[in-house]
Amino acid sequence: MKIVRVDTPVDDITYGAVEPEGIRLYRGTPFVAWEPTETVVAWNDAKLLAPVIPTKVIAVGQNYEDHASEMGNDVPEAPILFLKPPTSVIGPLQAIRLPDQSNEVHHEAELAVVIGRVTRNVAIEDVGPQILGYTAANDVTARDLQLADGQWTRAKGFDSFCPLGPAIDTDFDPQEGQSIVARVNDDTRQSATTAELVFGVGELVSFISSVMTLLPGDVILTGTPAGVGPIVPGDRVEVEIEGIGVLVNPVVAG
Amino acid sequence: MKIVRVDTPVDDITYGAVEPEGIRLYRGTPFVAWEPTETVVAWNDAKLLAPVIPTKVIAVGQNYEDHASEMGNDVPEAPILFLKPPTSVIGPLQAIRLPDQSNEVHHEAELAVVIGRVTRNVAIEDVGPQILGYTAANDVTARDLQLADGQWTRAKGFDSFCPLGPAIDTDFDPQEGQSIVARVNDDTRQSATTAELVFGVGELVSFISSVMTLLPGDVILTGTPAGVGPIVPGDRVEVEIEGIGVLVNPVVAG
Repeated sequence: MKIVRVDTPVDDITYGAVEPEGIRLYRGTPFVAWEPTETVVAWNDAKLLAPVIPTKVIAVGQNYEDHASEMGNDVPEAPILFLKPPTSVIGPLQAIRLPDQSNEVHHEAELAVVIGRVTRNVAIEDVGPQILGYTAANDVTARDLQLADGQWTRAKGFDSFCPLGPAIDTDFDPQEGQSIVARVNDDTRQSATTAELVFGVGELVSFISSVMTLLPGDVILTGTPAGVGPIVPGDRVEVEIEGIGVLVNPVVAG
Repeated sequence: MKIVRVDTPVDDITYGAVEPEGIRLYRGTPFVAWEPTETVVAWNDAKLLAPVIPTKVIAVGQNYEDHASEMGNDVPEAPILFLKPPTSVIGPLQAIRLPDQSNEVHHEAELAVVIGRVTRNVAIEDVGPQILGYTAANDVTARDLQLADGQWTRAKGFDSFCPLGPAIDTDFDPQEGQSIVARVNDDTRQSATTAELVFGVGELVSFISSVMTLLPGDVILTGTPAGVGPIVPGDRVEVEIEGIGVLVNPVVAG
């Protein structure tokens, strides 16, 4: 199933699922009281939103060897964690806004894990049922501020710096090595597969859950491959993950 | 007014305000539909909880000169921001749980700002009305993991690593230079005043709001003075801020 969150004339903001003829609206949320309605809205009557509202977004640094290398680092011994604030989340087609404080903002295409259940201290082999599904993410980063501050929170925390979407795929299995690609104005900038993750999804969820309790809807960004680079006003950035879809966002000033 | 959040036999979990004879329960929240009820519960019938549930906790590194110095750093040119996850928040008398992953967990006494209104790009001189009030915080930190990881998220993000309370003081003005003290088992470990903040509350709220939109209930930890040090199971840690009160938390293993 592909789960979306949509704004429709029928039912304001609600969750739904992708069907051939449009989006079937659901009652409740994917986490509780999830029940299909009789209503299917046409694609052009539904505005896609970020597919989930996380209480926290946990991200992982340098989790592809070639990206660690392009940043001048070795692959870390344990996952390097950082947080992006929930206020950084936007949905498909919403604009990435470049702040005045930075002169160099980069795209970072990433596979995102959406947590389905309260998860604490879960063993690697028990991670599967804790995951609702997967979506695409762009871990937008002010590279100059990242280097200046040392801590990455400001550089990665601006409003609009966490595009998510278009849908949460509940059938996706990252062990199949799906392609993950970033394009800027149709130029391919990043291209890798989920098989290249240094720490796999099971290890990441297990490790993070040994630090902080994960709640339904929380999102884990699993790191970006090599090829990160600048985006400027007027650009159109796409993150495509095989099987999930394409996350498209325009870029604007301030 | 001193605002608390309490669990009572009268009304489950609700907000209230401190009065001489006990805690007056309120309808709504301090942010919306805030209205006193006729009910006042006795102190021993109310369990104090963290006084607010933030969507995010933004903290500031090295914002007292003597602490920057004890950590071997200069005071930064711009505030160094990091985030603690909402799942790290606990209330008065709840236990700080020391994780197996660390051999050295430290207390860090801090003044916490509680945001009252949606705040984005606010000028320093306009910060005042955006603040609901102030409370005490302990920015509990696994010092060994902080140094090992470089990024501070894991070290400062464990469940229970953000005690807040006991109350939100809406009349507190940090420009008065109130004392801020940490005690471990009655031994004073940190002692400073809010006059020693490198970046004051106005500068911090303005700066942070230029990065991320602050929402009602969001909490800003303003940094810790010198004297940080280890806590071990069996300890009792107190953070006392003049005019706000004493935040007390026991320390337990795992």
